[in-house]
Amino acid sequence: MTNNRVAVIGAGPSGLAQLRAFQTAAQNGADIPEIVCFEKQANWGGLWNYDWRTGLDANGEPCHASMYRYLWSNGPKEGLEFADYSFEEHFGKQIASYPPRAVLFDYIEGRVLKAKIRDWIRFDTAVRLVNYNPTTELFTVTVHDYANDTTYSEDFGHLVVASGHFSTPNVPYYEGFEAYNGRLLHAHDFRDAREFSGKDILILGTSYSAEDIGSQCWKYGCKSITVAHRTAPMGFDWPDNWAEVPALVKVEGKTAHFKDETSRDVDAIILCTGYKHHFPFLPDDLRLKTINRLAASDLYKGVAFVHNPKVFYIGMQDQWFTFNMFDAQAWWARDVIMGKIEIPSDKSVLLADVQEREEREEVSDDGKYAIRYQGDYVEELISETDYPSFDVDGACEAFYQWKKHKSENIMGFRDNAYKSVITGSMAPKHHTPWVDALDDTKEVYLQN
Amino acid sequence: MTNNRVAVIGAGPSGLAQLRAFQTAAQNGADIPEIVCFEKQANWGGLWNYDWRTGLDANGEPCHASMYRYLWSNGPKEGLEFADYSFEEHFGKQIASYPPRAVLFDYIEGRVLKAKIRDWIRFDTAVRLVNYNPTTELFTVTVHDYANDTTYSEDFGHLVVASGHFSTPNVPYYEGFEAYNGRLLHAHDFRDAREFSGKDILILGTSYSAEDIGSQCWKYGCKSITVAHRTAPMGFDWPDNWAEVPALVKVEGKTAHFKDETSRDVDAIILCTGYKHHFPFLPDDLRLKTINRLAASDLYKGVAFVHNPKVFYIGMQDQWFTFNMFDAQAWWARDVIMGKIEIPSDKSVLLADVQEREEREEVSDDGKYAIRYQGDYVEELISETDYPSFDVDGACEAFYQWKKHKSENIMGFRDNAYKSVITGSMAPKHHTPWVDALDDTKEVYLQN
Repeated sequence: MTNNRVAVIGAGPSGLAQLRAFQTAAQNGADIPEIVCFEKQANWGGLWNYDWRTGLDANGEPCHASMYRYLWSNGPKEGLEFADYSFEEHFGKQIASYPPRAVLFDYIEGRVLKAKIRDWIRFDTAVRLVNYNPTTELFTVTVHDYANDTTYSEDFGHLVVASGHFSTPNVPYYEGFEAYNGRLLHAHDFRDAREFSGKDILILGTSYSAEDIGSQCWKYGCKSITVAHRTAPMGFDWPDNWAEVPALVKVEGKTAHFKDETSRDVDAIILCTGYKHHFPFLPDDLRLKTINRLAASDLYKGVAFVHNPKVFYIGMQDQWFTFNMFDAQAWWARDVIMGKIEIPSDKSVLLADVQEREEREEVSDDGKYAIRYQGDYVEELISETDYPSFDVDGACEAFYQWKKHKSENIMGFRDNAYKSVITGSMAPKHHTPWVDALDDTKEVYLQN
Repeated sequence: MTNNRVAVIGAGPSGLAQLRAFQTAAQNGADIPEIVCFEKQANWGGLWNYDWRTGLDANGEPCHASMYRYLWSNGPKEGLEFADYSFEEHFGKQIASYPPRAVLFDYIEGRVLKAKIRDWIRFDTAVRLVNYNPTTELFTVTVHDYANDTTYSEDFGHLVVASGHFSTPNVPYYEGFEAYNGRLLHAHDFRDAREFSGKDILILGTSYSAEDIGSQCWKYGCKSITVAHRTAPMGFDWPDNWAEVPALVKVEGKTAHFKDETSRDVDAIILCTGYKHHFPFLPDDLRLKTINRLAASDLYKGVAFVHNPKVFYIGMQDQWFTFNMFDAQAWWARDVIMGKIEIPSDKSVLLADVQEREEREEVSDDGKYAIRYQGDYVEELISETDYPSFDVDGACEAFYQWKKHKSENIMGFRDNAYKSVITGSMAPKHHTPWVDALDDTKEVYLQN
């Protein structure tokens, strides 16, 4: 028994890439399978769909949203531009390089509105459990439709998991957390930096969340920022009221004690301690277990699950490339499902592919090496499908420049502009320096 | 095909009551079925197991905990005392009437430690989905064992749902919430009142959470409390920095606007807007849908699910009585499962039972009537099992006195003492007035 239906879990950038991939094929005359996308939120956009709620959403499901107010892209848009839908096509003009959330949401939405695929998506529908039956070779997807408060199951021939991996916080315990007298939260629950105006903030972690949430709090008037690191400080040239200190040891009352035996009283502790790959709707035989790395475990070509290659995971890698990498993966998964690309039937070949990627990733931990590594990966996938080829070298170059601009001026790097690798045109400089731009609305951003 | 195993979901006061009911029968020589209790937390106690985390727990599951630091029972312990395990038996002496959380947790735990039933419980195990097969008459329970990061399914002949209904917040939207510049949280995520010291707080709601979280914030030094009500104010004689105002209309920046066209700037908005009965692990045919009321929908005798009487729900009612009511229900469910009590096979009889309870509840909305109604319910169930009979009239009397004491002095009602309906002895007055008792540890509370 075969079944040609495809279930896509999630309608964020990865899931929408999958839908767009099939829609493009249909537009080009192909006979595509039925696609059903399950999205637990009420709207599409994934993380880019801002939600003021924290903890649980309106349906009682874990909030997908990790994004906060006033967020601007922390990397240049020239690194993530869709090869089949440029910023200039969407906005009718070239725009500045570090758009705020609302601008990027608008751009993501523009492509799928044009593609007319909204009715492929069942919103307010949480996937509860997927089971695979090896005899029928079917996936049974059981969901809860919150709009009608009803549960149901349907069968599919292929499964695409595009539910993201920046929604389930990794929350470590430190001595005294259970009795801390201030505000204790993970970055996942951070929403409005103005809440922390006038406050002394402690941040744990040294990755993007730490860097950006700290910068937000600073920009919107917190009193001081202390960032504790377990291995090494971020080392940027921070403002005067920003300090990097060794690891947190314990908390007493409102006092944080660090490994160098110094201490500080803090009003809030923000845990920028990362996220977990978390698939509560998948049983052991279908569930990806990986850390956040460039060569995600158990994914042939970074996409097909080696233990069941009818299951595809989109966007599960640690990311320099984002939207265009999801596209490359989605186009590739589409072509496997449609029989244009064949996955070797010998599992050892799949495992060898994963091993080769892992070993190659581990050659260097230099950032530039990692960018090039992922650029090569995107090129590899694109070369196997009809996804529009683009100047991946140029995108890598934008990332290199970005890193350089950050090290030169961490509070000013967003004032730089880069050249589109899709249209070749140069972005304008934004009309207002980032540190002075307190209004992050689309209308204000586009006043260039 | 039959199967005598019983699955119990949740190891809080309701689930533990179910385990204790079976253990008591075994102790008395009965041949009891195998009991497997699934608990998603790492420890027992349900809501009484304090968790500093909010949002998602260490496993990425929705936090069960809604309880906060410094919580003292908001009703007299004489209304909730176990009939088979008195406070005097546990503590070796009579204790004051409004114990803090840690004291009640210790008491709850004492009974089940004595009963030696901890190894009936699989901790860190979230129930993912339950399916009922009418042919085999079996429930297939699929779980995620987080300790081993593995999923598995097992079959059972009966299902007891004891997962509580104060863990999934009901979070309404008001205009401007998405752009509020302060701290916005539901009572479910409230943890330490000292966080709000010196702050202007707005509370939405007029039930127990509003009353108690407001009192906490006041006790630990917030600047002011404003409580907005949609229907009527609570009407207690509040302190001077506490105001009750009409319903919230919208928020602009940090300014809350109310229905009477007044407005206030507030640093935090705490939504004391109640909880939802939420069973994400149950499909339509097994899932209870009810509002929070004394006569919960679709439960014969308030316990057996009318649409499948092999499913039992413990503690799903709105509650005056708590621990002892859960006991009464658990003993009754046990006796049905063990064939000592027969549930009528005619579904119309079950539905008529529910309807009679609903109609009787609706006779009056007076608090005293409701207390008596639920007291009668507890007596009804107890009369059908061997649960130790106790002075339900006396417990009702304690509740009446409690309500009177609250209306006399909302910040002082916990300084009163009541008589045990199990042992007949009078509780001592607590050594320190509640308003002055900032240390809520067990050690300090028991210094009477």
